[in-house]
Amino acid sequence: MQDDEEILDTNRAINRHSGAHIDPYEHYHRFNRKEYDDFTTIDWVRDRTRYLKRHRSLKFDEKKGWWNWIVSSHDAWSGWLIVSGVGILSGLCAGLIDIGTEWMTDLRLGVCPQRFWLNKKACCWSSNLTTADNDCPEWLSWSQIFGIMSSSASIFAFEYFVYVLVSFLLGFLAAVLVRDLAPYACGSGIPEIKTILSGFVIRSYLGKWVLLIKSLTMMMVVSAGLSLGKEGPLVHVASCCGNMLCRLFPKYRQNEVKKREILSAAAAAGVSVAFGAPIGGILFSLEEVVSYYFPLKTMWRSFFSALMAAIVLSYINPYGNGHLVRFEVSYDMVWHLFELIPFIVLGIFGGLYGAFFIKFNIMWSNFRKNSALKRFPVAEVVVVTVVTALLSYLNPYTKENTSSLIRHLFQQCDQSDSTPLCNYINNGTYVINTNDRANFPTLPAGPQVLRSLWLLALAMLLKAFVTIFTFGIKIPAGLFIPSMAVGACFGRILGVAMEQWYYYNPDTFFFKLACHPGRVCVQPGLYSMVGAAATLGGVTKMTVSLVVIMFELTGGLQYIVPIMFAVMTSKWVGDAFVEGGIYDGHIRLNGYPFLDSKEEVKFTANASEIMQPRKPTILVTINYNGNTVGSLLELMQECPYQGYPLVYSSESQQLIGFITRKDLKHRLDFALETNSNITVESKVYFSDKIPAQHDPSPLLLKEIVDLTPLQVTLETSFDTVLDIFRMLGTRKVLVIHKGRVMGLITKKDILRHIAASTDQDPGAIQFH
Amino acid sequence: MQDDEEILDTNRAINRHSGAHIDPYEHYHRFNRKEYDDFTTIDWVRDRTRYLKRHRSLKFDEKKGWWNWIVSSHDAWSGWLIVSGVGILSGLCAGLIDIGTEWMTDLRLGVCPQRFWLNKKACCWSSNLTTADNDCPEWLSWSQIFGIMSSSASIFAFEYFVYVLVSFLLGFLAAVLVRDLAPYACGSGIPEIKTILSGFVIRSYLGKWVLLIKSLTMMMVVSAGLSLGKEGPLVHVASCCGNMLCRLFPKYRQNEVKKREILSAAAAAGVSVAFGAPIGGILFSLEEVVSYYFPLKTMWRSFFSALMAAIVLSYINPYGNGHLVRFEVSYDMVWHLFELIPFIVLGIFGGLYGAFFIKFNIMWSNFRKNSALKRFPVAEVVVVTVVTALLSYLNPYTKENTSSLIRHLFQQCDQSDSTPLCNYINNGTYVINTNDRANFPTLPAGPQVLRSLWLLALAMLLKAFVTIFTFGIKIPAGLFIPSMAVGACFGRILGVAMEQWYYYNPDTFFFKLACHPGRVCVQPGLYSMVGAAATLGGVTKMTVSLVVIMFELTGGLQYIVPIMFAVMTSKWVGDAFVEGGIYDGHIRLNGYPFLDSKEEVKFTANASEIMQPRKPTILVTINYNGNTVGSLLELMQECPYQGYPLVYSSESQQLIGFITRKDLKHRLDFALETNSNITVESKVYFSDKIPAQHDPSPLLLKEIVDLTPLQVTLETSFDTVLDIFRMLGTRKVLVIHKGRVMGLITKKDILRHIAASTDQDPGAIQFH
Repeated sequence: MQDDEEILDTNRAINRHSGAHIDPYEHYHRFNRKEYDDFTTIDWVRDRTRYLKRHRSLKFDEKKGWWNWIVSSHDAWSGWLIVSGVGILSGLCAGLIDIGTEWMTDLRLGVCPQRFWLNKKACCWSSNLTTADNDCPEWLSWSQIFGIMSSSASIFAFEYFVYVLVSFLLGFLAAVLVRDLAPYACGSGIPEIKTILSGFVIRSYLGKWVLLIKSLTMMMVVSAGLSLGKEGPLVHVASCCGNMLCRLFPKYRQNEVKKREILSAAAAAGVSVAFGAPIGGILFSLEEVVSYYFPLKTMWRSFFSALMAAIVLSYINPYGNGHLVRFEVSYDMVWHLFELIPFIVLGIFGGLYGAFFIKFNIMWSNFRKNSALKRFPVAEVVVVTVVTALLSYLNPYTKENTSSLIRHLFQQCDQSDSTPLCNYINNGTYVINTNDRANFPTLPAGPQVLRSLWLLALAMLLKAFVTIFTFGIKIPAGLFIPSMAVGACFGRILGVAMEQWYYYNPDTFFFKLACHPGRVCVQPGLYSMVGAAATLGGVTKMTVSLVVIMFELTGGLQYIVPIMFAVMTSKWVGDAFVEGGIYDGHIRLNGYPFLDSKEEVKFTANASEIMQPRKPTILVTINYNGNTVGSLLELMQECPYQGYPLVYSSESQQLIGFITRKDLKHRLDFALETNSNITVESKVYFSDKIPAQHDPSPLLLKEIVDLTPLQVTLETSFDTVLDIFRMLGTRKVLVIHKGRVMGLITKKDILRHIAASTDQDPGAIQFH
Repeated sequence: MQDDEEILDTNRAINRHSGAHIDPYEHYHRFNRKEYDDFTTIDWVRDRTRYLKRHRSLKFDEKKGWWNWIVSSHDAWSGWLIVSGVGILSGLCAGLIDIGTEWMTDLRLGVCPQRFWLNKKACCWSSNLTTADNDCPEWLSWSQIFGIMSSSASIFAFEYFVYVLVSFLLGFLAAVLVRDLAPYACGSGIPEIKTILSGFVIRSYLGKWVLLIKSLTMMMVVSAGLSLGKEGPLVHVASCCGNMLCRLFPKYRQNEVKKREILSAAAAAGVSVAFGAPIGGILFSLEEVVSYYFPLKTMWRSFFSALMAAIVLSYINPYGNGHLVRFEVSYDMVWHLFELIPFIVLGIFGGLYGAFFIKFNIMWSNFRKNSALKRFPVAEVVVVTVVTALLSYLNPYTKENTSSLIRHLFQQCDQSDSTPLCNYINNGTYVINTNDRANFPTLPAGPQVLRSLWLLALAMLLKAFVTIFTFGIKIPAGLFIPSMAVGACFGRILGVAMEQWYYYNPDTFFFKLACHPGRVCVQPGLYSMVGAAATLGGVTKMTVSLVVIMFELTGGLQYIVPIMFAVMTSKWVGDAFVEGGIYDGHIRLNGYPFLDSKEEVKFTANASEIMQPRKPTILVTINYNGNTVGSLLELMQECPYQGYPLVYSSESQQLIGFITRKDLKHRLDFALETNSNITVESKVYFSDKIPAQHDPSPLLLKEIVDLTPLQVTLETSFDTVLDIFRMLGTRKVLVIHKGRVMGLITKKDILRHIAASTDQDPGAIQFH
């Protein structure tokens, strides 16, 4: 009994006297070894406790002199410093990427020969001869440059060729860069960031190379006209910025839990710059990315970071409208109650599209993973790029940048607007009053509008199909923009249909009830916006954050109800077919150990049914007394588990603590390497009390014993165990029955059990 | 060993066979007794598990026939039904309260004799003779009614008298109503709702009487001109609506955890209608009210509820501007970087004011609690009302409704504006162009402006002092509006000062750098808005939600950065003087068991230092075998603890489970009352296995044993124990050392320890 009383006392003394700050993990840092291996789960409980100890020790030292005071203050401020830095850096990256993308996109069509570094808009800026199409003599198309003027057919053919060629080159280059320099730069990164934030280690996923290559290739692939967006990848880029800044401060570098606080702020900053939506950013990081573990303090910092990022971006001003709102709408009308029905139709469409997309994308990704295709990532990218370019060029709505398409579809038709989509027949009886746009009647659609609708339908189908094959190829690829484009096309079509219905049948009872003759009643732009929200909701299964992002994206606070109804319908319809969003699908596909904090458990079990080992296997434990270096090494070799409970004796199985394999192995190896007095015969003690005489000299391993493992009983329900893992973020829970250790449960056991109960392959969970 | 194997097996069988849904707490409901006593803490882990069992059992039954399917579907939908209902009801209540308040407020000044139920605005609506001051012949002041026309002095004296008299009557009536019919209706209710949501039971705090009386008296006290707002109380009213609707559905009525999900949505709806801020509402319920326990699913429902409430309110349209934004601002200018300095000054003011307010309000509340004052609540209300009315009447800025004052201060001065605050000297050289308000130069302030500033300063001082004595008296009283008013006054004063500085010294370097001559540079309204945010931040210590509420309240998305800087400064400055907001102060004052989820722990301890009992007292346990009804009753009498660990034997202290005093007592009493075969000699068994022969017949109490108590070791740090309580919401944790139960930790122990470590009185925590 005496020994462990002593353990207690020493432990208490350590805790109390925070001045003498003993970190049992210090030697990892000292010898530059990593505390966590790649692809393992971190222990939130332990790291949080370590952080608090460190914090208190600094606070304690504070009074010892001005230098300590500076150290402590610096430490206290470093969080704010980093989040400001993350915000500024993310804003800068996003601004540069936006500018670069615009330049490269225009490169497919022509060049500014005098100043090749300018995009079309900037090139024509100073010109006096700019036409309505933003064309100017300073900007030359490729056919003009190469002097091909013979016939319009040959001009078309040549420009088509150059368009496809430039796309091909950009796609190929991007794929090669990603493959050779930063394989982690591919995809949207959101599934991985969700997993990392939930407490998983993927080394160098957030490194500087990834940042560089992802930023660069993102511009290329967007410019190559692929059906993908740069919004998801921007979250990854911002997280890389956060991770890099963490390396500058020991408080964050050495503690994975603290690092994740910064990363969650970075994710918010990423969304903020992607959509110009700082509030949507925090809600996104709350709803989608972050789990329970975070203190609410983080929220405030996330907000600050998101706001800084948005401000920096708005100073760079890549959208050229002077403020953050990206797809600004300003409809001069209110929506009517009867329109909820078409909005719900849009929601149903969104849900169905989402389910369709998730199902086929996951199916195709699975095929890619398990077939020869995975050996030719560059070829795959090139094929997808060329096919997309070949098909896109023929349709003006797919030829243009997807963001521009969405912006265009969201707009209401002005009377001065001469685009085909706004080709309404005005027989001249209506006086044009641009100041009061609400006060003009609904007009009949002209032939151009109908043609545009057909083209929009084709564009929608193209985007819908091509994105399935695009999301998942080995280049940076987000799916916010293509998903929104699909919904925006559908919404616009439905909107024009409603509008024309109203024109031809204004006496239908709901029109008669709600609409005023001579005023705008149905606004196709609004339908487009709602449709975009619905499809995005169907694909990502986001809810509150999506609604907020949509309203920040468009500035339309008064259209929040239509958006909400559509998103809600979309989620319900989608959930009926596929559970979880596309990101959850990819997390499962990759076998990441991610515990969804939203999911409610639908099945029952007791701790006894999920714990390891199962009968008849017996739990391997380490006895408190009688160990030698050799016996422990042997034990580790024979029973290669992740850790071992330390018990008083193997008969009583009374728990003292827990020892991880990694710590034990590291310590034994280290002792054997560095201390010549230690041999395999050396006795190992897990306390301070050692017999006076020793030969060979003994090894004291008290500090690697985790004296505070959480314990549950055999009968504890699965829900409770799951909550312990989800909310406390612990790595393992010991299962006790009447004072005896019976087994242990790790996060992997939990995930395996969930997978088994939901008809998935439990073997798919790959990592610890 | 066999007995407990059996316990296990039966337990497993119950879990597995969800069809046979056995709820050990069913008998409470059957005999209409309450599962939790008043002023006790609920057990989240247990109630959540119960809910999941119930849910699964319904799902399981679903396949048994269409009736079961309907029951199950109804159950699944009931959450959405309730939150919609909560939204609609809250919106209705808020609308009615707003209308009633406006009517009563005008009653102090006059009446509409033809239609007395109309307020001044509505009375003058149809009149053709309405003047700029909103006066019209249909509306008569009290002096006109009573024919007092002799001299302006006597008119003034008479109207002053009526003003004070009506205030007195309203205040008196409200105080009597609250004292006699619903004592819980007093205060803002937010501290109590925070506590309730964190898992505490305060019976009938959210009852229908409270709803009715609070709604009614709220109108009265706001109309009586007291320095209080109706925003906080609206959150309470919405929560009452939520609670009442919960009673209609067994899923929510019988489960305190599920009920709290609805209550958190109701809180969001309350904030939403209070400020017209649905997004701010969810963030408020996330940041301020709700703790960790909630699934994110709740967020979506909260949002829905908040939005429904806002829509209903906007249909009732009490602010008459057709949409939700309450203090709408539309400044035609951007803010300049140098203005961050005055904004930070506003932040410092806000922080200092907050600290001052919290300190003195808590001091005064403490005095009220511990002196004879508490015996005269009505007299106190009357005195405060009369003093406030006497002082307020003399200053036009305090005479008017506080909301109107804030709206007024937030506005920018139009050239057509003739109020004293906008009395700028225009010597006629500037052409008035109302469409382009940004393009007119800064003008010198006229004498009226300076006089207004003095009056504003006096108004600010009055509000600041009177609110200290007002918040806490026994009537419904929120402090959002008075706190904002203080800041708005100060901000306006500072704003005008800056503006005049610019006028007289436009060459000061920062003005020269940032401002364009001939354009508006400094906007006093913006300073007022920022000042309001800063004081509110200082008082409540809200952060993200406050910023979002401010921008939803004013519609000024582009002024989010100034608000944020001010709120941040205010929080930092305030935290230096007083920790926690005013609500935390009142929670501590009332001794509610509330664990702040934001607070980081600043001190260390081990589980061994907080657990009960301490040495040399020994833990009282119940042995698994050898109990009789009499011995258990005796044990309960001798050791009046809240619960007892069930151990295998008192020598080994090996834990089997935990029995609460309430369950045990209820069961024993119930058995003695209803079953004549059971006597004090009856043997009590905690398993299913009973000897065949028995006299008197035995009592089986297996189902009251909680087989799944959470266990920690003696060495577990206080942080981890605290996290277990905060995040899992458990009621107790057992402390185990080497397989032996050593003690237990309850929420009260945690709170006592926190209080002791932060130099507060540990005895102040009153409830379990």
